[in-house]
Amino acid sequence: MAGPPPTTSSAARAAARKVMERADRLARCSEEPGRITRSYGTPALREARDLVEGWMREAGLEVRRDAIGNASGAVPACSSGARTLLLGSHIDSVRDAGRYDGPLGVLVAIAAVELLLAEGHSAPFGIEVVAFADEEGLRYRSSYLASRALAGTIEVAELDFVDAAGISLRDAIRAMGGDPDALSSARRSGAELLGYVEVHIEQGPVLEQQGLALGVVSAIAGQSRGSVTFTGVAGHAGTVPAELRRDALCGAAEWVLSVEAEPKRHPGLVATVGQLAIEPSVGNVIPAMARASYDVRHSDDAEKARACQRLRDGAQQIGDRRGLSVLWETLQEHRAVPMAAHLVDALGRSVAAVGHPVHSMPSGAGHDAVPLHELTDVAMLFVRCRGGVSHHPDESVEEADVVAAIAAIAELLRSPGLEARR
Amino acid sequence: MAGPPPTTSSAARAAARKVMERADRLARCSEEPGRITRSYGTPALREARDLVEGWMREAGLEVRRDAIGNASGAVPACSSGARTLLLGSHIDSVRDAGRYDGPLGVLVAIAAVELLLAEGHSAPFGIEVVAFADEEGLRYRSSYLASRALAGTIEVAELDFVDAAGISLRDAIRAMGGDPDALSSARRSGAELLGYVEVHIEQGPVLEQQGLALGVVSAIAGQSRGSVTFTGVAGHAGTVPAELRRDALCGAAEWVLSVEAEPKRHPGLVATVGQLAIEPSVGNVIPAMARASYDVRHSDDAEKARACQRLRDGAQQIGDRRGLSVLWETLQEHRAVPMAAHLVDALGRSVAAVGHPVHSMPSGAGHDAVPLHELTDVAMLFVRCRGGVSHHPDESVEEADVVAAIAAIAELLRSPGLEARR
Repeated sequence: MAGPPPTTSSAARAAARKVMERADRLARCSEEPGRITRSYGTPALREARDLVEGWMREAGLEVRRDAIGNASGAVPACSSGARTLLLGSHIDSVRDAGRYDGPLGVLVAIAAVELLLAEGHSAPFGIEVVAFADEEGLRYRSSYLASRALAGTIEVAELDFVDAAGISLRDAIRAMGGDPDALSSARRSGAELLGYVEVHIEQGPVLEQQGLALGVVSAIAGQSRGSVTFTGVAGHAGTVPAELRRDALCGAAEWVLSVEAEPKRHPGLVATVGQLAIEPSVGNVIPAMARASYDVRHSDDAEKARACQRLRDGAQQIGDRRGLSVLWETLQEHRAVPMAAHLVDALGRSVAAVGHPVHSMPSGAGHDAVPLHELTDVAMLFVRCRGGVSHHPDESVEEADVVAAIAAIAELLRSPGLEARR
Repeated sequence: MAGPPPTTSSAARAAARKVMERADRLARCSEEPGRITRSYGTPALREARDLVEGWMREAGLEVRRDAIGNASGAVPACSSGARTLLLGSHIDSVRDAGRYDGPLGVLVAIAAVELLLAEGHSAPFGIEVVAFADEEGLRYRSSYLASRALAGTIEVAELDFVDAAGISLRDAIRAMGGDPDALSSARRSGAELLGYVEVHIEQGPVLEQQGLALGVVSAIAGQSRGSVTFTGVAGHAGTVPAELRRDALCGAAEWVLSVEAEPKRHPGLVATVGQLAIEPSVGNVIPAMARASYDVRHSDDAEKARACQRLRDGAQQIGDRRGLSVLWETLQEHRAVPMAAHLVDALGRSVAAVGHPVHSMPSGAGHDAVPLHELTDVAMLFVRCRGGVSHHPDESVEEADVVAAIAAIAELLRSPGLEARR
């Protein structure tokens, strides 16, 4: 496989250096001393946005803000009527976050466009880099808030959500310099868009395990969340013999192992019990109640539904056999989000063109591409991260992998056929 | 098998009626309205003790109080130099308790002695009914406090223990009319004692399951308590595939099932995981840590030790196989307390004499007989309780079973050979 063009490669290396420095600089924008926490509407997020806007201008982009406070930097199409390809990610964070989840996608996009403009390249389509102001929903528990503004899927009632201090989302939008009464102005028309392409750290260990810098996302997995509660009979740990027990925890333990076993028989599935609460939770009392959470994901909604049904049936069988009552509760059902085949193909060609193997993989986590899928075609490029660690200060990416990501996105933007293939 | 002597039976039935009424009356002595809570040093416990002392006097007993506030009612031996058989149980309670755990043993003992005295019987040994003022340790987390005063095993440092309100045990002893500086006066000499026999509700479901009113305790099981902590690696529930996970909860679940399996292979053993804490305990995060408690009991200390070792080895094997670190922590080790064979035999003969099958069974729970075992021979008689429920307002015993218990204890007190067998 041929390497990247030497000119691109050298420029991409310099651009990657800058991306790493900028990620470090953004990490200093925080509402909490000593760690990274940037939630919507805070001075820390405004500071980060100011920096990003400055870097956009430095790259030669025309900067705008929308009514929810997203920053975007545009390269107008050279031909009028041409559609626009959106690139981007988010610049808010979880509490005590790493420095790459979100910012990497924004910074790589800016770097790639800057590279392109420096080459004097003029794309046959518009390019726009968006820095979304709220994806994590840390402050208002409202995921994808900023990208939903583009998709027009924010509900009026959400504006009255309040944070822990009682401040409404409406007021937080104003604090971001936005206008809660003009959110519809942020809404984009799908007809004017070519698609949305997001670079993001993998947040998982697969690329590292396989020795790959980049992964082309095939789909964002659907997710089912809920819980199952086993109820038996409490009893004295010393006086109730084994054969007379109806121990809720033992039923839950058996079910936890059945959840663990599912993905081994069904590739592409992930299934997790992340919480297990028992009552009365006293060392010398047989548990009367055990409630286990479940989180089941698959790129294929039908596969996911079948897995959930098997787990539900299995819980009931365990309960029947053990004399435990079983309560199944569904809390969330998110459908899988397919990536647009022509964008996935183009991304794959770009990755190959810059000398990297094309590895297709699902995204187990949600991203801004989820709500934007309602608006336009979406695709994503994953960058390897150390140990798969994310949402943690130890989040780490290799500069060489950032070189690859910048080169691949620049290559994508050079694709003459991107507009035509639509 | 012959039934009880008609005279005894009729008198025992009347006595049992009185015991039930007295248990109801004691249930109204509480520090919390609407439920039964009687902890050491409270007006509620003093009120209960006053009632019990009144009933002792009514039965013809000579009432005394000791330095920790225990009430006792004695029937002196007809011959000087004869030893004394202690009967009794405790009159304090857990929070939101039932009405029989403790009081039943005191009330049955009073009733049996009253029956005996009414018959004009004079035992060749002294008889003393003790109402212990603190067994549950609700207020000072100091189990068997009152019976340890008789055994002389209260440590000076314990006097400085404080309750939730900051009141010291020293002051609580004074509130009970006792004298914290004269606790040694409550100490009894083993040489003067014939033994200690306690009637108690089973607090388990075995007698009910087997259709038996009474059980003769063979031993109080030893108890090992501790925890095992599995530590793996946290991860995103969507992005870490099954084969790359080191899920602490799955390891703990496997171990919980191994704890459940132990007693099935080793009769006489009970083993319980009553607590299971996981971290970070978030629905979409793979658990990094899971700590499970264990409570293992057996009447044979060596059997118990072997079971704990198997569980410990098993935890390590699970950890090794799953890439989890394993931390085993031992919190408590209580040796089994054997019942004195000659008292067990005498109790068995008494049970048979009043027309009930003699069912030998271990006690999985601890009782005042545990510390008194340091002082003298001990034995216990269990009374069936509904559903095995204890430490709960639903605690319930059948009046007919109380008739059996009173008759059996009265029969024991009539045993001519009890002193001789020592």
